[in-house]
Amino acid sequence: MEERFDISILLDFYGNLLTEKQLDIMNMYYNEDLSLSEIAELNNTSRQAIHDIIKRCQKLLIGYENKLHLKKKSADNALIKKSLLKKLDVIKCKVNNNDIELYINDIEKEIMENL
Amino acid sequence: MEERFDISILLDFYGNLLTEKQLDIMNMYYNEDLSLSEIAELNNTSRQAIHDIIKRCQKLLIGYENKLHLKKKSADNALIKKSLLKKLDVIKCKVNNNDIELYINDIEKEIMENL
Repeated sequence: MEERFDISILLDFYGNLLTEKQLDIMNMYYNEDLSLSEIAELNNTSRQAIHDIIKRCQKLLIGYENKLHLKKKSADNALIKKSLLKKLDVIKCKVNNNDIELYINDIEKEIMENL
Repeated sequence: MEERFDISILLDFYGNLLTEKQLDIMNMYYNEDLSLSEIAELNNTSRQAIHDIIKRCQKLLIGYENKLHLKKKSADNALIKKSLLKKLDVIKCKVNNNDIELYINDIEKEIMENL
């Protein structure tokens, strides 16, 4: 199976494109850490059926990422944010003025919370 | 039909989730501005068939937006970027120092090009 963590992230990005039932099962497996047997019991079906649904959903999620690249874009974005925050800190040091520092703190907060 | 411009934007975000044929037809209609009859002729099919494909793809694109909100997120992001650039300009005015101005110009460029 694909790296568990990767699939869990793809589920955050593309989970809403799955059917409700698929999403439920994927959440049980990846976020609630239930075993195949436990999920099978909760869904009145076989362990094999759950295994097949999970494999199929993995393929769907990977297919979505190959087409929309949201996970990659988000990772790229995180790097840019980090670089921006670093540069703003440099300005704070260079300018060394309390008002400017407070103002830049607000900008940094906006970047961290919203972008 | 949905507002032409809105669908054209959704096509940018979600076009890759359509089949190759659907995407071709939607591009012809929304980006190359061909008429239904012209697209029908190019695809050896009826005007009605093309109309139906376009309607179906519109629904798919709107459905994707309702689930992933990429168009809305992009619009929100554009507003935040604008606000950040404005605040960085304020710092340039407040500090009034050539080195800092050049440094902030670089940051602004990074925001405009990458975020």
